[in-house]
Amino acid sequence: MLVCVGSIAFDSVETPERKVEDVLGGSAVFFGLAASFFGPVGLVGVVGEDFAEENLDLLRSRGIDTAGVERVPGRTFRWAGRYVDDMNVRETTNLELNVFGDFEPTLPDAYRDCDYCFLANGSPAIQHRVIDQLHSPKLVLADTMNHWIADTRDDVLRMLERVDGVIINDEEATMLAERRNLVAAARAVAALGPEIVVVKKGAHGCLVVVGDSVVPLPAFPLEEVRDPTGAGDCFAGAFMGYLAQAGDHSLATLRRAALYGTLVASFDCEGFSIDRLRDLTLDEIEARRQLFADMLRL
Amino acid sequence: MLVCVGSIAFDSVETPERKVEDVLGGSAVFFGLAASFFGPVGLVGVVGEDFAEENLDLLRSRGIDTAGVERVPGRTFRWAGRYVDDMNVRETTNLELNVFGDFEPTLPDAYRDCDYCFLANGSPAIQHRVIDQLHSPKLVLADTMNHWIADTRDDVLRMLERVDGVIINDEEATMLAERRNLVAAARAVAALGPEIVVVKKGAHGCLVVVGDSVVPLPAFPLEEVRDPTGAGDCFAGAFMGYLAQAGDHSLATLRRAALYGTLVASFDCEGFSIDRLRDLTLDEIEARRQLFADMLRL
Repeated sequence: MLVCVGSIAFDSVETPERKVEDVLGGSAVFFGLAASFFGPVGLVGVVGEDFAEENLDLLRSRGIDTAGVERVPGRTFRWAGRYVDDMNVRETTNLELNVFGDFEPTLPDAYRDCDYCFLANGSPAIQHRVIDQLHSPKLVLADTMNHWIADTRDDVLRMLERVDGVIINDEEATMLAERRNLVAAARAVAALGPEIVVVKKGAHGCLVVVGDSVVPLPAFPLEEVRDPTGAGDCFAGAFMGYLAQAGDHSLATLRRAALYGTLVASFDCEGFSIDRLRDLTLDEIEARRQLFADMLRL
Repeated sequence: MLVCVGSIAFDSVETPERKVEDVLGGSAVFFGLAASFFGPVGLVGVVGEDFAEENLDLLRSRGIDTAGVERVPGRTFRWAGRYVDDMNVRETTNLELNVFGDFEPTLPDAYRDCDYCFLANGSPAIQHRVIDQLHSPKLVLADTMNHWIADTRDDVLRMLERVDGVIINDEEATMLAERRNLVAAARAVAALGPEIVVVKKGAHGCLVVVGDSVVPLPAFPLEEVRDPTGAGDCFAGAFMGYLAQAGDHSLATLRRAALYGTLVASFDCEGFSIDRLRDLTLDEIEARRQLFADMLRL
């Protein structure tokens, strides 16, 4: 089984085209939806009293296990952001941790035996607490964020020593490695512990660095990006979902996983919030994979 | 034959690692060196009295025809630039057009019959004058620059109506199309005339847009970039050199051409100025092509 620990949120998003308020979001939600195309996935997270049960029903309808989602008194995590002009640049306009701020995850027994675990956006304290509860995972990958690196660098570095890989964006890689060249930065991050380093570059694709190997992958070219919120978490979800299904992490499998990550992230960008993921099918993903492979046929 | 019209310059370049002064550079020089791996190429440009004949000897030693290079009274074009911290961001610190400012190219008779022509960095006036002199080219591609688009937009737009394609960078595509999404920008540039639109994104690779087709290609991942000066012109040189050798411009050929463009540009970035291109061999290019194809094997 694949387990993901991360945020479950209400997002408010503004783009040049549209504005939505308090829609379902959060790293665990996007991750779970993306991973659900490939196999079973369980979420660990926390919601408040304001979180309608139908949101969890929606996740369950995609085969996502929600036994690890706690409901506690208080308000659900809220994030608000804006994309102005350049859809690659996001500005956070509001952040309320609410119940996520004091979250001390306790994994259901079944989750502790999982083979694959992803530590999505969350404090290094939450990430350490989850690692402590895992019995003998095959592969633990993690994300982090600019403010955790800036404010709790030592905790993040200790976390990196405990995981098998990271899926981070270019800014995070640069901050961790203190180097601008992304290949060099990825290698420097690998030297901090994680065997597998995936650097996401938004519309510019990604780099997978493992051992001496580097795999650069462009993004699927989109003529219109409606809302990139969650694209990075979708990448991670499809990446880990594919790995868990494949059951190995050879270079060929990692490359395939990055391909699926790229594809599901591209679908996410085509709709607001989770809209495009709601009705997305594996057939559509496979059709785009064929299209993408044809584009890259050298 | 492939003909390139562009600048021949003395460059001064500063990077965090090193500083060089008055070394051989210019768009036509980088283009010619890159194209020379694939077939005959002739350069059209202008140099001043300060331009040592041994520089032309160096180009000729690579099989480049210099019959179109005029020598006139005055100083050679000079450019100085600096890369600080982020090798993707270039700051021009000095620009002296000198003899290039009044350049009115006159093509040798043999060049007028060329099948392939590239209009590298230069004013739209120079580019129009060259197009006027071509008899019946199979394919004319052009580059342009931010200041030509800003200062002489109408002349650039008239030029776009007269060429078959462009090889421009992301900033130029955005300025021409007045759109930030690069796929949409490339399509908008195509709507202005050119059938083939190649958008270079530096370390992030390129997009080739032709008709309904989009080909995204990552850059070859380099752990160390010494000096990216001329990489864009090397891309164009190898791209056009490959097309001229292939003799067609089907989508498959364009994709291959972009691949070679990417590879030669990557070698250029590994040395200062033209240093790496001087001793580069086709065998090395082919070896890197194999390595790159393996990286992208999906």
